[in-house]
Amino acid sequence: MGRERIRATARRIAAGNESASKLLEQARAAAERAKALNPIAFVDWEAAAERARALDAELAAGTPRGALHGIPISIKDLFNVRGMPTRGGTRAALPDLGRDEAELVTRLRAAGALIFAKTNMHEIALGATGENAWTGDVCNPFDPARQAGGSSSGAAVSVASGIGLGAVGSDTGGSVRVPAAFCGVSGFKPSYGAIPLAGSLYLSWTCDHAGPIAESVDDCALLFEAMALRSSAHGRVPRAPRLAVPRPWLAGRMSAAVASRFERVLLRLAASGAVIESHEMPALSLAWAHYTPIVRAEAAFVHRAALAAGGEGFSESVRAPMIDGGGLPAIRYLEAMNARERVRASLAAVLRDFDAIVLPTSPVLPPLRGQLEVEVAGGRTLSTREAVLGQTLPFSMAGLPALSIPCGFEQGLPVGLQVVGAFDADARLLALGRWIEETLEAEITSAPS
Amino acid sequence: MGRERIRATARRIAAGNESASKLLEQARAAAERAKALNPIAFVDWEAAAERARALDAELAAGTPRGALHGIPISIKDLFNVRGMPTRGGTRAALPDLGRDEAELVTRLRAAGALIFAKTNMHEIALGATGENAWTGDVCNPFDPARQAGGSSSGAAVSVASGIGLGAVGSDTGGSVRVPAAFCGVSGFKPSYGAIPLAGSLYLSWTCDHAGPIAESVDDCALLFEAMALRSSAHGRVPRAPRLAVPRPWLAGRMSAAVASRFERVLLRLAASGAVIESHEMPALSLAWAHYTPIVRAEAAFVHRAALAAGGEGFSESVRAPMIDGGGLPAIRYLEAMNARERVRASLAAVLRDFDAIVLPTSPVLPPLRGQLEVEVAGGRTLSTREAVLGQTLPFSMAGLPALSIPCGFEQGLPVGLQVVGAFDADARLLALGRWIEETLEAEITSAPS
Repeated sequence: MGRERIRATARRIAAGNESASKLLEQARAAAERAKALNPIAFVDWEAAAERARALDAELAAGTPRGALHGIPISIKDLFNVRGMPTRGGTRAALPDLGRDEAELVTRLRAAGALIFAKTNMHEIALGATGENAWTGDVCNPFDPARQAGGSSSGAAVSVASGIGLGAVGSDTGGSVRVPAAFCGVSGFKPSYGAIPLAGSLYLSWTCDHAGPIAESVDDCALLFEAMALRSSAHGRVPRAPRLAVPRPWLAGRMSAAVASRFERVLLRLAASGAVIESHEMPALSLAWAHYTPIVRAEAAFVHRAALAAGGEGFSESVRAPMIDGGGLPAIRYLEAMNARERVRASLAAVLRDFDAIVLPTSPVLPPLRGQLEVEVAGGRTLSTREAVLGQTLPFSMAGLPALSIPCGFEQGLPVGLQVVGAFDADARLLALGRWIEETLEAEITSAPS
Repeated sequence: MGRERIRATARRIAAGNESASKLLEQARAAAERAKALNPIAFVDWEAAAERARALDAELAAGTPRGALHGIPISIKDLFNVRGMPTRGGTRAALPDLGRDEAELVTRLRAAGALIFAKTNMHEIALGATGENAWTGDVCNPFDPARQAGGSSSGAAVSVASGIGLGAVGSDTGGSVRVPAAFCGVSGFKPSYGAIPLAGSLYLSWTCDHAGPIAESVDDCALLFEAMALRSSAHGRVPRAPRLAVPRPWLAGRMSAAVASRFERVLLRLAASGAVIESHEMPALSLAWAHYTPIVRAEAAFVHRAALAAGGEGFSESVRAPMIDGGGLPAIRYLEAMNARERVRASLAAVLRDFDAIVLPTSPVLPPLRGQLEVEVAGGRTLSTREAVLGQTLPFSMAGLPALSIPCGFEQGLPVGLQVVGAFDADARLLALGRWIEETLEAEITSAPS
């Protein structure tokens, strides 16, 4: 996979050596091959082909609209897209999202993107496995018996399967980063508020973020820049990047396979000049203790009408946590919001001393579908939810930008490295991410045999 | 009363024609005269005299510290002040406020203010009458049988009684503006966040504002500028200020006396060039429907430790609403926060078309102490709480800057005019407030016979 796949492809399109129509044909063939993985929620290939021809004709008659002219991009099925339904992976009635297209989709179109399909997701985005009783599970491309990760499961599987060159997902506790890690692609959850959410189905509006999934950090950066409200001048990588690793916290919660991969990665980064230091980061446990009340209460409020009508159309696995959220006292919610400010302040302090926090995106390899517990260090078990979301949700809760970058394979399954930056320093994080990707590429991230 | 009392006094101090020590002596004499009104929570006159002498000596040896050098200012008893206790008008144990002085007090000192006393308040600021079972009621200077307004009751009474030249209060739903109106002085609740609250006892941190009470708008502006985090360049008044009046909403809720005074005020402003238009403003009713859950839930969280310990030390009138708040479901709180965004958006839209919203600060004259209901238009009654807070709380909830300016007397009692500006346009509102004050002064606001 190319480190500048979208940039290079856009250049070839602009030069007349590639076309949106041809790329769409390739996406269609890839979708056909990957059908059993179930990544697509909605596609109308004929309508998409018409839009591709229009983009090609527009270019033939003039100049590219922007950096994404003709690049096929899919959209998670919780953002409004003109001419496509928004179902959010559920059979329950959704709250009114308005009739306008999601603002981020409009921004992608303005940059020339070919919006061609909507992708499957964990029901209402409340879960990280990609299993879905209504639309069918989305399956891991490296082993269909395993979880693709979620909730932006179809987005990650689409990119991993060559169905388009990029995808837009959403991340409330890890829903961009976890599926990116499980499917061996890159995912970027930007700073809170950097990408507008107008026209999207909220899960928990104080934690929700939209973010790109693509083959590489540079691809994610291009998609981010097209969608972001804030300008994102290119950042620079310091000569010796200082990376904080929450070693004491990680020690008890990683599987042997991921731990071993992570150590190799750190050695490689250190060999290339990174300064790596262990850090306590008690904020990570605090975040876990307070994330759930926030998300469940806000989700219960978002879906209050459907819940009040009996909650039919929700599968039990999402209805039960929302009923829990609906019964939560306000002071428990406020306690969580208060703890969140301490998480934010504590991580901000770490990121004044370090250029980034690095840790595995998930402490375990992709679990089997249906697997509720995973084994971690010393034969201990954790719930799959705690293991998988526990390493990503602190950074959603704190609104910090976080990348998941592929860092190689264990047992034939991909491992993701999470890199977390300071609030609003998205460009600097993306620059560091490019450097890490390049540093790891040669010896670490070759595909499994 | 002078329209630039503090500015003129500071000039005389700087010129050596006045001194902090003399002003403090006057404050002490005034406090003696007004003792029965009960405005003071704490004062150590000897310690204050020592600080006054130090400020005078400092000036004799150099230049003024700032715009408030030597001006005696009192502080509401919910802000930490070095060398003075913080009791918040209650016997319950307060949450930990830290040991540092409140940041706004430090800022006042940096501008040269003589911080000399702490003022009485409604218990934990949860109420607008100034009645207090523990510290005794604070009484209205125009009729001690009547309410001084609250919760910054002692602050307003101090200024009205000449105990210092200015006071700092706090305003969560009207607690600066209501007592200012009831005591015939000026009060300013700035934009949310404009004055830092570090080192203060919160009531409801999403609605809490600190703000000055003083004789005139210009006095309030000087105090505001010393305390504010944001720079506040002087605003300009348009040639024909456009003022929105929520007539349909006001019609059913004003007493005859306040309504008649308000009409005279509007005629006078129109005669001076203001363009006055009626506006529906449904946001005002929406605000009333959703303010209480926000404040009660947040107050229950602030005081959770004391409540969990049995709530002794709270009088029943504040314990009961907090127990109500402690039992509130999170989704009701979120519904209120959601409604608040609609209030904010709706008022922001009005303030794109108008320079300000104007309405009486209170729809009724100061009620008697202990009076739970008031009569309004057409023989209808409202609870004192709904009448008095209903006209101020929408602007706390929306975080908009709002002034209360004296606009004359009815039945020997003062009436306040509320002027509300757009978010963060504090300087523009203060400029408009100075113009309104000047316009009304001659014929409207002469003291009662």
